[in-house]
Amino acid sequence: MYDRLKGFRDFYPGEMSARRETIDTLEETASRYGFREVGTPALEGTQMYVDKSGEEIVEELYAFEDRGGREVAMTPELTPTVARMVVQKQQELSKPIKWVSTRPFWRYEEPQQGRFREFYQTNVDIFGSSDPAADAEILAWAADALTGLGLTGEHFEFRVSHRDILGGLLESFDADVDTEAAIRAVDKSDKIEKAEYHGLLTDAGLSYDQAEQFDDLLAVDADDLDELITFADTDRVEAAVTNLQDVLAAAEDFGVREYCTLSLETARGLDYYTGVVFECFDSTGEVSRSIFGGGRYDDLIESFGGQPTPAVGVAPGHATLSLLCQRAGVWPEEELSTDYYVLQVGDTRPVAARVARDLRERGHVVESDVAGRSFGAQLDYADSINAETVVIVGEQDLENDELTIKDMESGDQTQVPVDEFPGDDDAPTYEDLG
Amino acid sequence: MYDRLKGFRDFYPGEMSARRETIDTLEETASRYGFREVGTPALEGTQMYVDKSGEEIVEELYAFEDRGGREVAMTPELTPTVARMVVQKQQELSKPIKWVSTRPFWRYEEPQQGRFREFYQTNVDIFGSSDPAADAEILAWAADALTGLGLTGEHFEFRVSHRDILGGLLESFDADVDTEAAIRAVDKSDKIEKAEYHGLLTDAGLSYDQAEQFDDLLAVDADDLDELITFADTDRVEAAVTNLQDVLAAAEDFGVREYCTLSLETARGLDYYTGVVFECFDSTGEVSRSIFGGGRYDDLIESFGGQPTPAVGVAPGHATLSLLCQRAGVWPEEELSTDYYVLQVGDTRPVAARVARDLRERGHVVESDVAGRSFGAQLDYADSINAETVVIVGEQDLENDELTIKDMESGDQTQVPVDEFPGDDDAPTYEDLG
Repeated sequence: MYDRLKGFRDFYPGEMSARRETIDTLEETASRYGFREVGTPALEGTQMYVDKSGEEIVEELYAFEDRGGREVAMTPELTPTVARMVVQKQQELSKPIKWVSTRPFWRYEEPQQGRFREFYQTNVDIFGSSDPAADAEILAWAADALTGLGLTGEHFEFRVSHRDILGGLLESFDADVDTEAAIRAVDKSDKIEKAEYHGLLTDAGLSYDQAEQFDDLLAVDADDLDELITFADTDRVEAAVTNLQDVLAAAEDFGVREYCTLSLETARGLDYYTGVVFECFDSTGEVSRSIFGGGRYDDLIESFGGQPTPAVGVAPGHATLSLLCQRAGVWPEEELSTDYYVLQVGDTRPVAARVARDLRERGHVVESDVAGRSFGAQLDYADSINAETVVIVGEQDLENDELTIKDMESGDQTQVPVDEFPGDDDAPTYEDLG
Repeated sequence: MYDRLKGFRDFYPGEMSARRETIDTLEETASRYGFREVGTPALEGTQMYVDKSGEEIVEELYAFEDRGGREVAMTPELTPTVARMVVQKQQELSKPIKWVSTRPFWRYEEPQQGRFREFYQTNVDIFGSSDPAADAEILAWAADALTGLGLTGEHFEFRVSHRDILGGLLESFDADVDTEAAIRAVDKSDKIEKAEYHGLLTDAGLSYDQAEQFDDLLAVDADDLDELITFADTDRVEAAVTNLQDVLAAAEDFGVREYCTLSLETARGLDYYTGVVFECFDSTGEVSRSIFGGGRYDDLIESFGGQPTPAVGVAPGHATLSLLCQRAGVWPEEELSTDYYVLQVGDTRPVAARVARDLRERGHVVESDVAGRSFGAQLDYADSINAETVVIVGEQDLENDELTIKDMESGDQTQVPVDEFPGDDDAPTYEDLG
C-alpha cells in the first residue's frame, strides 16, 4: 500500500463536492465582475522567486534541477506568474486587465491546521489601474464571494491598512529606521506581547518613545486619519492617507464599506505591496489566523521588466476559508446527490439504457447498473448515492409495457407505461406520476 | 523579463475560455453519468511509478528529492493515484466507484504538436465492476462528451481491441513468445512498415510464418471474431473474444456502437491494461496520432495491495482533443463575452456602482470603469471585451434622472429613467427599452 505525502491531501467525492461548490461561488462571482480566467503553469524558473524574495525563499520551495539542467520550482504563489504573463503581452492586452484563476500551489512548510504543503487559492487581480475604484472592486469581489458562500458581516471583517502610511510615518520620525524590519514588526504585533513588539520597533531604529508614539498613531480611528497627515507633515503621508480615504469612499459606493475596519497594524508579510493592503479575519476570532489577504503592488510589473503598471489583487486560500465557513455553519453539505437510479431486474438493459439516456439528455444525474448486481444490492447502492427517484425496469413489468417509479424518501411507488417515460416532462418523479 | 519553461503553456483569457467550455462539457457529461469529482495531489512518492513501470520511467518524470529527503515525482498520470485512493478507503467506498477529475500532469518529454511537458487530462474511471456494461459506460461517456463538443461520427472513431485476445493468440502459437515485446510491436504497427513490424514480431519469438498468420488474424472482422476462438482453441481466447463481443453488445444498448470499430492492432502502450482497450482517432486521419485512449486494468488495485478490484477508465488529453475539434471546425470561439459595460461620465460612480451591482445580482457579467478613463477610452474598452449593452451614466442625464442604454452591435441608444433600470426585467437591453 502506498501513502500520500505529508502535507498533501486526497479529496474524496463528498468533500470534493463541497469544495467545488465553494470554488464555483468564488469564480462565478469573479465572472460577474468581468474577471477572465487564465491558465498558468505549475513550474517556473526558480530565479524569478529568488529575485523577488531573496535566496532564502528557496528553502520554502519545492525547487529542483530538471533533466535539462534548469533550476525550476513548483509555483508557491500566482502573482509572479501573472506578472510575467502581463509583461509578455503588455502591448496586446487592453487595460485594465482583470484575471481570475483557481489552482494549487506548493510550499515546503510544516503543516498545521489550515496550512498544507499543497494548498488551493483563487487569485483575482486587476492590472493597469491605480484608481481607488480598482482597490474597491477587489474588496467588493471578496465581500460578494463571501456573502455568496452564506457568510455575513457577523462572520468576517476586512482589516484595511496602507503600506505607504506605515512607511511614510516611519520615515517622518527623526531616526534611522529599517522600514522593512519595522513593517515586519507591525505585521507580528497582534501575535506578540506589547513589550516584545516595542522591542522589535526599537531594534528597527525607533527610540522607545517613538515606538510608543508610532503604536498610538496606528490606533487612529478611520474618521481621524487626517491626524496622521498633521503629525507627519509630508507629501508622502498626505498622499497615502488621501488614497486610503478614497478607497474607503469607493468601497462605500460599491456597497462593501460595512465589511471594512481600519486597522493600520495590518501590514501583510509579503514585500511587494505598495498601497492599500487588507486581510480578512473571522469576526468571532474563532479562526485566529488571517483567512486571506490582498493589496496593491504597483512596482512588481516594472521590476519584472515591464512598463510601469499598477496592480491590485487578492487570493483567498481554500483551507482557511473552509475553516471559516465550517465555524460559521455555512460549509456546504459533504454529500452526493443523484436525480435517478435506473434499476435493472433481469435482462432489461436495452430498455434501462434507453431510459437512462433519455433522462441524461434532459440534463439529469443518472446512474444505472454496470456491475450485474442484484435488486437489493442495486437499491442499497441507489441509497448510498442519495438517488431521489428509482426507475425500476423489471422483466415482469416490461411484459405489461410498464416501469415502476419509486420515490426514495417516502418509499412510495407507481407504475407508468414504458413508452411514456420520461415523456414530455422535464423531470418526472413519483409526485408527477403517482 | 522572465520566460516560461519549455513545454509549459500560459493560457490567456480568450484561449482559456474555449478550454473551459471544453472542460465543462466533459465534466458535465461525466456528472450526468454519476461520476463524482475527486481532488488529487500533484506530487506522489516516486516508488509508486517505479513499481508500476520500472526504473526507466524515472527518466521521463519530474522526479526529485524533497527537503525532507523523500523521493517524489510530479504525477505523470492519474491512474496510480486513484488506485492508491481506492485501496486506502476500500471498505468505506460503495461500489462501483465512479470518479472524474480534470487537472494537469507532467512528463519530461520532447514537446511536439499536441504534446507538452505540462498537459491536461480529464480522467474518468469505474472501479469494482468487471461487467461489460462498465466498459460500455466508459465508451458511452467518451462518445457523449465528444458529441457534446459538436463532433460527430464523421469526425472520430473508437478503435476497440482486447489485450487478452492479443495475449491469448500469442500464447496459442507453438513458440516461446515475449508477449510484452510482441504487444509493443502491435502498438507500433500502424506507424511502421509491414516488414519492420514482422521483424519486431519475429524478434519477440514468432517465426516469420507465425508473424504473418498473427497479422492476418488481427485483421478479422467484428462479425467473424469466432474464427479466433477456433484458431486458438483455448479457454483464454474464448473468454476474451466473448468479453469483447459482450462489450460491443453493451455499447449497442448504450447507443454508441456506431462509433466503435474493431481494431485488434490497437494495443495501447501502457502495461497495466488487461481487457478491452480502445483509442479515439480522427476519422479523417488529419490528426494522425491517437487523440486519447482507455481500457480495462483489472489487476492494478490488487498489485497496489488492495482487494482484487476490476477497473476500467479513459483519459482524454485536452491538447490532442483541441486539435481534433479545431480541424473539425467545432473548437469554441476564443473570445470574451460581456453582458453590460456601465460607462461613467463625470462624477457618477455612486449610481454606476449601484446599477452594476443590481445587474450582477441578476447573474450578468458586468464591467464598469475602475481606472478613471475618458468616455472614448471606456467605449473602446467596452468594445474590446465584446460588451453587448453599454449603460451610460452621465452627469447631464442624471440631472434629468435618466440613463442611456446603448446597443453595441447596432449603435442604437435610448434614454430610460434611472429608477427603472434594471427594473423588473431580468436582462434589459436596448431591444426591450428602445
